[in-house]
Amino acid sequence: MKKAKPRRQRAHPFAYEGLERVMHERARLGVLSSLLAHPKGLSFAAVKQLCGLTDGNLSRHLDVLESARLVEVTRETGGGRPQSLCRITAEGRRRFVGYLSVLERVLLDAQTPVRPASAPQTYATPR
Amino acid sequence: MKKAKPRRQRAHPFAYEGLERVMHERARLGVLSSLLAHPKGLSFAAVKQLCGLTDGNLSRHLDVLESARLVEVTRETGGGRPQSLCRITAEGRRRFVGYLSVLERVLLDAQTPVRPASAPQTYATPR
Repeated sequence: MKKAKPRRQRAHPFAYEGLERVMHERARLGVLSSLLAHPKGLSFAAVKQLCGLTDGNLSRHLDVLESARLVEVTRETGGGRPQSLCRITAEGRRRFVGYLSVLERVLLDAQTPVRPASAPQTYATPR
Repeated sequence: MKKAKPRRQRAHPFAYEGLERVMHERARLGVLSSLLAHPKGLSFAAVKQLCGLTDGNLSRHLDVLESARLVEVTRETGGGRPQSLCRITAEGRRRFVGYLSVLERVLLDAQTPVRPASAPQTYATPR
């Protein structure tokens, strides 16, 4: 996972610019997380259940994620009734992992007390 | 830090209901993080700098955080020219720590491949 810069190296250490709105919105964060955990893809119904979303909500968020090229939705017709298959794209995986590295930084910052610039910066493992 | 439930114990494992909108908004997440790291409080100017916000933006977000009782802003007049001091409240600290535990869960989920229910759940330390 690509690392975000330590706090002391950032001009605005609490700006967290890497938290792109398209991924940071709570429902979309859940959708991307569910798809990252299922690299072969998930049906629309499965994402809906895993993320606790309504049909309309999930459709809307998938549209946003598709427009941003983070997710692709394909219509599968082989065998039974057709269903939509949702997958995270290669670009989606790359950008979401970058996003997650900023979230990790937020957690590290929360566990790193402010100290004089001369003191060593320690890495506090989240419990 | 209070722990969020492991993925398998959640009805909608990727819903992340604990990501309260009032704290999840990126600028407010930064403001709360900066104040958590400075328990004695920060001046308005310091928060503005640390979070890379404009006067207007910070004022607006502080209003939202004050209304939610997460932050308190007091006018300090002793000595030099008056300035606003921003502090995270006890309630703010408690709720923000709860919020952070959900963020931690997001990171753990991203590092935990989906596996059969019988397999052990391992704790993957974020790199």
